[in-house]
Amino acid sequence: MPKVGIVMGSDSDYQVVKETIDILKKFNVEVDARVISAHRTPQIAFEFAKNAESNGIELMIGAAGKAAHLPGVLAGITPLPVIGLPIKSSTMDGLDSLLSIVQMPSGVPVATVAINGSLNAGLLAIQILSVKYPELRASYKEYKQELAKQVVEKNDKLQKML
Amino acid sequence: MPKVGIVMGSDSDYQVVKETIDILKKFNVEVDARVISAHRTPQIAFEFAKNAESNGIELMIGAAGKAAHLPGVLAGITPLPVIGLPIKSSTMDGLDSLLSIVQMPSGVPVATVAINGSLNAGLLAIQILSVKYPELRASYKEYKQELAKQVVEKNDKLQKML
Amino acid sequence: MPKVGIVMGSDSDYQVVKETIDILKKFNVEVDARVISAHRTPQIAFEFAKNAESNGIELMIGAAGKAAHLPGVLAGITPLPVIGLPIKSSTMDGLDSLLSIVQMPSGVPVATVAINGSLNAGLLAIQILSVKYPELRASYKEYKQELAKQVVEKNDKLQKML
Amino acid sequence: MPKVGIVMGSDSDYQVVKETIDILKKFNVEVDARVISAHRTPQIAFEFAKNAESNGIELMIGAAGKAAHLPGVLAGITPLPVIGLPIKSSTMDGLDSLLSIVQMPSGVPVATVAINGSLNAGLLAIQILSVKYPELRASYKEYKQELAKQVVEKNDKLQKML
Amino acid sequence: MPKVGIVMGSDSDYQVVKETIDILKKFNVEVDARVISAHRTPQIAFEFAKNAESNGIELMIGAAGKAAHLPGVLAGITPLPVIGLPIKSSTMDGLDSLLSIVQMPSGVPVATVAINGSLNAGLLAIQILSVKYPELRASYKEYKQELAKQVVEKNDKLQKML
Amino acid sequence: MPKVGIVMGSDSDYQVVKETIDILKKFNVEVDARVISAHRTPQIAFEFAKNAESNGIELMIGAAGKAAHLPGVLAGITPLPVIGLPIKSSTMDGLDSLLSIVQMPSGVPVATVAINGSLNAGLLAIQILSVKYPELRASYKEYKQELAKQVVEKNDKLQKML
Amino acid sequence: MPKVGIVMGSDSDYQVVKETIDILKKFNVEVDARVISAHRTPQIAFEFAKNAESNGIELMIGAAGKAAHLPGVLAGITPLPVIGLPIKSSTMDGLDSLLSIVQMPSGVPVATVAINGSLNAGLLAIQILSVKYPELRASYKEYKQELAKQVVEKNDKLQKML
Amino acid sequence: MPKVGIVMGSDSDYQVVKETIDILKKFNVEVDARVISAHRTPQIAFEFAKNAESNGIELMIGAAGKAAHLPGVLAGITPLPVIGLPIKSSTMDGLDSLLSIVQMPSGVPVATVAINGSLNAGLLAIQILSVKYPELRASYKEYKQELAKQVVEKNDKLQKML
Repeated sequence: MPKVGIVMGSDSDYQVVKETIDILKKFNVEVDARVISAHRTPQIAFEFAKNAESNGIELMIGAAGKAAHLPGVLAGITPLPVIGLPIKSSTMDGLDSLLSIVQMPSGVPVATVAINGSLNAGLLAIQILSVKYPELRASYKEYKQELAKQVVEKNDKLQKML
Repeated sequence: MPKVGIVMGSDSDYQVVKETIDILKKFNVEVDARVISAHRTPQIAFEFAKNAESNGIELMIGAAGKAAHLPGVLAGITPLPVIGLPIKSSTMDGLDSLLSIVQMPSGVPVATVAINGSLNAGLLAIQILSVKYPELRASYKEYKQELAKQVVEKNDKLQKML
Repeated sequence: MPKVGIVMGSDSDYQVVKETIDILKKFNVEVDARVISAHRTPQIAFEFAKNAESNGIELMIGAAGKAAHLPGVLAGITPLPVIGLPIKSSTMDGLDSLLSIVQMPSGVPVATVAINGSLNAGLLAIQILSVKYPELRASYKEYKQELAKQVVEKNDKLQKML
Repeated sequence: MPKVGIVMGSDSDYQVVKETIDILKKFNVEVDARVISAHRTPQIAFEFAKNAESNGIELMIGAAGKAAHLPGVLAGITPLPVIGLPIKSSTMDGLDSLLSIVQMPSGVPVATVAINGSLNAGLLAIQILSVKYPELRASYKEYKQELAKQVVEKNDKLQKML
Repeated sequence: MPKVGIVMGSDSDYQVVKETIDILKKFNVEVDARVISAHRTPQIAFEFAKNAESNGIELMIGAAGKAAHLPGVLAGITPLPVIGLPIKSSTMDGLDSLLSIVQMPSGVPVATVAINGSLNAGLLAIQILSVKYPELRASYKEYKQELAKQVVEKNDKLQKML
Repeated sequence: MPKVGIVMGSDSDYQVVKETIDILKKFNVEVDARVISAHRTPQIAFEFAKNAESNGIELMIGAAGKAAHLPGVLAGITPLPVIGLPIKSSTMDGLDSLLSIVQMPSGVPVATVAINGSLNAGLLAIQILSVKYPELRASYKEYKQELAKQVVEKNDKLQKML
Repeated sequence: MPKVGIVMGSDSDYQVVKETIDILKKFNVEVDARVISAHRTPQIAFEFAKNAESNGIELMIGAAGKAAHLPGVLAGITPLPVIGLPIKSSTMDGLDSLLSIVQMPSGVPVATVAINGSLNAGLLAIQILSVKYPELRASYKEYKQELAKQVVEKNDKLQKML
Repeated sequence: MPKVGIVMGSDSDYQVVKETIDILKKFNVEVDARVISAHRTPQIAFEFAKNAESNGIELMIGAAGKAAHLPGVLAGITPLPVIGLPIKSSTMDGLDSLLSIVQMPSGVPVATVAINGSLNAGLLAIQILSVKYPELRASYKEYKQELAKQVVEKNDKLQKML
């Protein structure tokens, strides 16, 4: 069972990140989720990223808002792929979070998803892990079919309503 | 030897995407690069994405500018992880490309890198593949050390200059 | 009686798109409205756009939010004119939807209306159809006069209030 | 032979609009192109829009930059469909032109294309006219195939280069 | 007693424009306020602007939202100074209104105030009229002193609170 | 002969402001143009604004870039109408200058023109002064006709070219 | 005991600035907080900034919204370091305030913190004063440790919840 | 003689940062300038920030572009005040750099100056140090007077030219 490390910059991010954790668990991916601030607990962030690989973590997700350095800081330390989840903040509508995460300089990428795209952060993790784990690939294909089925059902509902 | 599929929306994107191809080849990753337009050759895009997995491709990269639908279109079809590379266009400084790629709706993520972040698109591919391929992980760690060494050398040069 | 195909990317868009459907029906235009996702049900989107012309549809409207690829995807497949209706999403105030729809690359235009401009999407459809259908032209002229009359009445009301 | 009226707000817009005129002529569409300013010659703009329909014009294209009122002003007067072409100005990278054209209030739509999207303005006109003129539909389908062929050829060239 | 013509593009703008009317009346400036749409009643807008000077109006204020053409349209017709008041719309936070009003092309200026700056639209009118009317200049100076006094009083209140 | 005070924040603004000075002189308006920085010579700015009215200045124009406080600072001191001319700076494409000038808080308006809208700053000054000076009104009407004539001539040229 | 001068442009800013005052008092820094408008009471702003140094103030904080000139105006007069606190306004989400404060021209810097970053404005003041006052440095280090401890506790809470 | 630590994220930033170094040296402030990347050499950044205070550095300046985490990362580690200098990057005109630096979360401020505001970064450092060093305060006052004198001279030159 593969393991994903999730780091959120503040406990207030949990309400968004919860959806990421839930979808990963639904796919039977082990989750090690932590509140670690890149700015307030830099040493802990450093250690967590440094030891992630040896602790069996295969992929990291960093979620943060405003000047959202967390995913980039993790990516600077670990060789693991890092997914960045920009959290919408009270000002700037999440544009600050998005640019702070996605515009990483050459050499240290962060795989960025949409602002508050917590479900997609989890699904991207599953897609990445499924490169290695065939059972995850199979489950993801089923999930994709389920998504399609839901759209078809919503359309059926609309047709009845019109 | 793992294989990556790269799709660019226009041949004019090649000057940016070249750096992605080069870094992948340097890491001994096989590259299947194509010019396919999501809008002008939708059927080809559909087929390429549909058959990517069975053709041995393990990860796709889509590069496009302006209303950059290509990475999202690929991600809608393939179960493989898709990296999105926003190309700076002649107006809007790449913001249109970035938002068109990163703001994917729930269910279909695209792992987005910086505007014109062609090197990072390749490095992210390597990080993702290295979840499965230990030799890529090892090479990437060396690369990371090399990056660090270059910064140190640049600093040494600066110290001499000051 | 001319027929318009409306595709919305999600059933949550219906609350905005309803106004488009209503105005078209008021002008006696037949409406074939569907929930089809460019990303979750790409095959269905492809088929719907492919067959639209032969199914008697003369114009398509695509409504979508965030990385709003739907109108562009339809326009890539069908030769029919496609109107794009950007839906305001929970972040970025609809700017992402607008740019994803309007900034189409050369060769495949989408006739874009304002963010959440659902009434205008319908009226633009009527204007376009009225190139062929004189009775729609006549009705639209009446509608335009009615709009003007309403402004005059609102002004009369203001004059009494002041 | 259908006729399109093109109005540009300034003669400096001609270098962009030229591509619109050229593509229309290539499709054997008659073009009545004028320099008329919504602000400097409002009376002429008013008259041109007022008489467009009776002069045999079936569709109008308005091209303007900065506070680009021209397409909206035309649309306020004529019942014909109006395509808006935002011209990139020396500041704001065309965002001012785009928003001034696309964000039309309810009741008076403008079919907006990309910033400096001069080719697409012409192609959209052809798509709209082809609702009525089957020969234009046929030509446009050929054009679409030609576009696809060009992408395929560019891909072939890339394959040889790689 | 000088007269100001105020035109708002929609009756929904009245809740903002009311403050403009109130401050003008407080300064004993006659107000001729109307609901006239540049797009839905272009002929009325044209006539109102055309006749404003001969009707004794010395300055015009245009208030509008979204693709806010009204002030620019008035300014294209009348030789009178025109103040533009951008109204915040439901999307884009008023940026569309602001750019549509302030970015006027060379030759036809609009004196633009802040988004929803209804009080300032009125005060600017008074400042402009006071170039001619010394009694308005005197009243405005008193007003300015009153503003300063209010700030001082608010500071006094703060000092007590701290 | 009316007098206008022009203050530019830096001598580098002169290349833009020159057009403002030229048009004012062409209309026989006296110009008192100065380089005064709101931040580097605040005392001089204060004095100039304080004494403007008694020195016979009837209207002020402030031109500045980046955090462009100059027009607002002048407006805080003088009761005269103040026109703000945002200068495009080396970053942010003039958006910083525009917002710093136009978004004035309630009580102290600045009549803002387009970014780098130097001609319009001068023309707005003339329109404002023409509230008092009938000869300026007459000249401005001629100028407006001249503008219209130029557009007509440019259209004639286009017709010959097409 | 060091003294900080805080100037807010409007009493409505107090609800944000209160947090700045509170943190400074908690660190035993004397606070002289005032409501002074750069535009409505420019003379008072001038005097306060002019006399700040001789009144024993060692650092100033200016808080303002919209076209937020206050911090820059203070910085133009006093040689003391000036911290700028951009207040989110009712439109533009604070971007106008931020750019008006941070984009100061060469020669007159303002140390800008985040939009509505009232706590950080206070902490930055403490960091600056601690260059001189070792006891503030010591207290700030304790505060930093306290911040880290809170993150650790929040993480502990999360671990229990998961 | 006080000492300032300057860290730039890339040697390409040196062309901007040079002006910061020069002004500090002109004020006889010792400068320890380094190329250290927050992402490529995180351990070195950590150590440099950790030891800055004990190495006699009294203030740090971090200069970086794009997703500019460097100043925030330094501020997370050191108790010293940190000035952030956003470097304009090849896309997004420096907005990404600015937001990544200024929008720091509560608890860890960065004193941000204008995009590419290298001179101001140095002057702000001098203002901050002058809280402790009276001789720097004196020099800065002279510098301020010199700035004012230059403006006066530029105005004299303009007067001769007009």
